[in-house]
Amino acid sequence: MRNLLLTISFDGSRYCGFQVQKNAVSVAQRVQDAIERVTGTRSDIKGCSRTDSGVHANMFCLNFRTGCPLDCRRLRRALDAVLPDDIAATDVREVPDDFHARYSCVAKRYIYKIWNSPSKSPFLKGYSLHYPAPLDEELLSRAAAHFVGTHDFAGFCSAGGSAADTVRTVYDCRVLRDGELVTVSITGNGFLYNMVRIVVGTLLSVNEGRISPDDIPDIIASRDRSRAGQTVGPQGLYLDRVYYRLPEDILR
Amino acid sequence: MRNLLLTISFDGSRYCGFQVQKNAVSVAQRVQDAIERVTGTRSDIKGCSRTDSGVHANMFCLNFRTGCPLDCRRLRRALDAVLPDDIAATDVREVPDDFHARYSCVAKRYIYKIWNSPSKSPFLKGYSLHYPAPLDEELLSRAAAHFVGTHDFAGFCSAGGSAADTVRTVYDCRVLRDGELVTVSITGNGFLYNMVRIVVGTLLSVNEGRISPDDIPDIIASRDRSRAGQTVGPQGLYLDRVYYRLPEDILR
Repeated sequence: MRNLLLTISFDGSRYCGFQVQKNAVSVAQRVQDAIERVTGTRSDIKGCSRTDSGVHANMFCLNFRTGCPLDCRRLRRALDAVLPDDIAATDVREVPDDFHARYSCVAKRYIYKIWNSPSKSPFLKGYSLHYPAPLDEELLSRAAAHFVGTHDFAGFCSAGGSAADTVRTVYDCRVLRDGELVTVSITGNGFLYNMVRIVVGTLLSVNEGRISPDDIPDIIASRDRSRAGQTVGPQGLYLDRVYYRLPEDILR
Repeated sequence: MRNLLLTISFDGSRYCGFQVQKNAVSVAQRVQDAIERVTGTRSDIKGCSRTDSGVHANMFCLNFRTGCPLDCRRLRRALDAVLPDDIAATDVREVPDDFHARYSCVAKRYIYKIWNSPSKSPFLKGYSLHYPAPLDEELLSRAAAHFVGTHDFAGFCSAGGSAADTVRTVYDCRVLRDGELVTVSITGNGFLYNMVRIVVGTLLSVNEGRISPDDIPDIIASRDRSRAGQTVGPQGLYLDRVYYRLPEDILR
């Protein structure tokens, strides 16, 4: 049996997240359907992470075992063709037998899109958070820098998370503006349940003057969920990049 | 009566275009509905252009007359709130009585988005043309430069256009790549029916080797529709900017 790494991107709007769930359509289910149609066998698949309902992915990795002899290029093309419009197959490659999309993953980058305009966006509804008040991206960048490092992020985790160990390393956290679109980008070796959405909510509290950028280290150290900001909605969140080898620039 | 200039942006997917038509929902109709809800009176509106079914707008201008005393800021907010999700009201301002969104317009910029990737885009279906083969944006840029100037564009016009005079001035035409997204941008004092979509189709013929960049001047001079490329689909087309005064950089 070959072990294949499939990379996809997906619009999460219509799904309950990646993971298979009862009574709801998941991305995993659609991918399994596509693999079954192309290879003739239903395969078990391992995703690089769970994503919540409504969360999107510019890049999401999963692996599965198959006896199908089709070369990777053809497999990708066939999967891309049979997957629904909102899931694309961007890459297929053969990986060593011990490769596991989740356990082999060393880092991930998430981005969160904020539409910062007094008027709504006809194109980004469901794909961004609409924040009509002025947003000071330089202030937010200063606050964001405090998340970088190895910290116990217990205060940035929603109830329902399964992690026993709440220490994570954030390699990079920054805020960029491109016209009316403000993007928060965060790269780390792992993320707790809702961690990115709480980090973004905390940055919005900074924008609103309720938290000062220099309070962030204290808030992290307190491990107190109530001191961080709100959990923002899933619609602005994208898994943006999955790393199986740490790139030089992350470790700079 | 005040004469108001309303700027909107819209996702054209669900509409038959801007202009009111029988038996189909137009953007104009939805805007008139919103104006009526906010001001209490149904107003006649003048759009800066017709747009085809499925074409989008990052910026579209229209004017209407109203006796409504609400200040422009409140009017904008109210219109944005009552318009459907796929139409945003981005600006309202008072203009002189002789201002007409179409006749006062001196230039427009259109962009055409091409998703240039072997795999489909889960996010840009309906918002770009999917072109899976390699696209040489430098070759296309060289070809695009030949459209700049004052030319008779009769060969770049679909049957059904109403223009008696087919001479137009193109101020700028360029091709830019941002990762897998290639954008053709064209600014001119006016455009014939389907002109931008035929220009883009011609650039794709250049990419495919059927037309050489240096043939473009001849093809324009021939005024022969059959020598230009195909009319590409509406879904990648966006009215991007409407000018009521020519900016310096257009005339450089």
